[in-house]
Amino acid sequence: MKKNKETDLTATYEIRVRFNETDPLGIVWHGNYIKYFEDGREAFGRKYGITYLDVNDYGYVTPIVKSSCEHKLPLKYGEIAKIEVRFIDTLAAKMIFTYEIKNEKDQVVCTGETTQVFLNKKGELSLNVPSFFEEWKMKMNL
Amino acid sequence: MKKNKETDLTATYEIRVRFNETDPLGIVWHGNYIKYFEDGREAFGRKYGITYLDVNDYGYVTPIVKSSCEHKLPLKYGEIAKIEVRFIDTLAAKMIFTYEIKNEKDQVVCTGETTQVFLNKKGELSLNVPSFFEEWKMKMNL
Amino acid sequence: MKKNKETDLTATYEIRVRFNETDPLGIVWHGNYIKYFEDGREAFGRKYGITYLDVNDYGYVTPIVKSSCEHKLPLKYGEIAKIEVRFIDTLAAKMIFTYEIKNEKDQVVCTGETTQVFLNKKGELSLNVPSFFEEWKMKMNL
Amino acid sequence: MKKNKETDLTATYEIRVRFNETDPLGIVWHGNYIKYFEDGREAFGRKYGITYLDVNDYGYVTPIVKSSCEHKLPLKYGEIAKIEVRFIDTLAAKMIFTYEIKNEKDQVVCTGETTQVFLNKKGELSLNVPSFFEEWKMKMNL
Repeated sequence: MKKNKETDLTATYEIRVRFNETDPLGIVWHGNYIKYFEDGREAFGRKYGITYLDVNDYGYVTPIVKSSCEHKLPLKYGEIAKIEVRFIDTLAAKMIFTYEIKNEKDQVVCTGETTQVFLNKKGELSLNVPSFFEEWKMKMNL
Repeated sequence: MKKNKETDLTATYEIRVRFNETDPLGIVWHGNYIKYFEDGREAFGRKYGITYLDVNDYGYVTPIVKSSCEHKLPLKYGEIAKIEVRFIDTLAAKMIFTYEIKNEKDQVVCTGETTQVFLNKKGELSLNVPSFFEEWKMKMNL
Repeated sequence: MKKNKETDLTATYEIRVRFNETDPLGIVWHGNYIKYFEDGREAFGRKYGITYLDVNDYGYVTPIVKSSCEHKLPLKYGEIAKIEVRFIDTLAAKMIFTYEIKNEKDQVVCTGETTQVFLNKKGELSLNVPSFFEEWKMKMNL
Repeated sequence: MKKNKETDLTATYEIRVRFNETDPLGIVWHGNYIKYFEDGREAFGRKYGITYLDVNDYGYVTPIVKSSCEHKLPLKYGEIAKIEVRFIDTLAAKMIFTYEIKNEKDQVVCTGETTQVFLNKKGELSLNVPSFFEEWKMKMNL
């Protein structure tokens, strides 16, 4: 049985590269893609009712424990890019997302993945999938 | 009677310009000077026992309500700069600091000023100078 | 004769407060408003044909030499805010903008002002208003 | 033959967590670790004569094409952390570094890895290791 499985749950978010996000090479500084990923993840949360604030209402926070990023092409100041974020289903007590950022020519400039865990209000790690998240997954037909 | 008065309470903090702080012109993006000011202010707090966490222990937070910044010269990647922060005494229930940033040639590259107010834990604005701050000022011979 | 004059040239830009823009108090860290100002200024540039790249094509860069910011109310994570940027006409060889940021209840949370100068490609300060900018102002009926 | 090999070339850099690097949970926002990695990498460059500016002098830039980050423990405002960066030797035309960030109790809070490639001034990818870098490696006894 495969542990992690791509789903059809995706959201897209469009950003315009800001001057202050670019470096002396005139391209987006690599660390800023982590912000773009977050933009995408927040758009996903709004679309599917699973934002940071929703999760918080259920008594959890979901810090990122792992992230990775691969850069294929640069993004320049003023370019418009599209972030596609996809929910990856896992049996573990985790939230996993993958990311694909495309430029205006529809070329992939960057891909990535993040993993989040569930902490309760006392800061304790949830070893089991929280029930609110099980229910959310069912509602999503996962 | 002059309301605001320069004091001799100063602290200095040295920073090295990071690659990710510079823009396509190869110079520090102007918004990053606000971070340098904060670096200086925190160094001041540590030197004189009035850090954000100290203030917090007394039941207050001190959000910035006003800031200004004047740029005289650029700072480039790799340059070392010195931030001098000075406490400005005021009768108002405020914390005021001025800033002067100098490059390695001792030229002033940037000056600025910030004003903070006192909010109690309920988020209410303090119209009077909090007693812990009066005591701190006395200890500082102000 | 008044040197600086408010104009009717304005642009608005909507932002959504990102998680990574907020601080331990749960509100937007004050230095991030400088980024919002830039978002507004870039929207203005696109609307009126005077972006950073346009200016660059005429052989100039326009670094910020002065900025100020007054905070009236906090912005929290997830809030939507509207940045209104206004062009201030001046006889000096400068570009001046004022900013007003409003929350969803239409309350002013922040106001500010920035001043830019013109440097040519050699990095020399323009003491006279560059002709391309004179022409732009005429086209704008200023 | 193993392609990538840990070396003894390491540098350490100490940072103090800034207020503006922490999020509403009171801990460093995960994207800021990428900045800490860069702080470490720049310290490495200064120690071993292979900074961004050195590389630039040889006609190359070295954009990051891959980065990853694993978070074990949070860092809070005011904590001091130590970044250890290690050079990983590879036969490929790449620069690889690993990172380990420790808190004051010497606990590992974060590990990571970055990969950089060599682009010449025309922006072309170097498929072979540039000769200046071969020479640097020899000087380092690699």
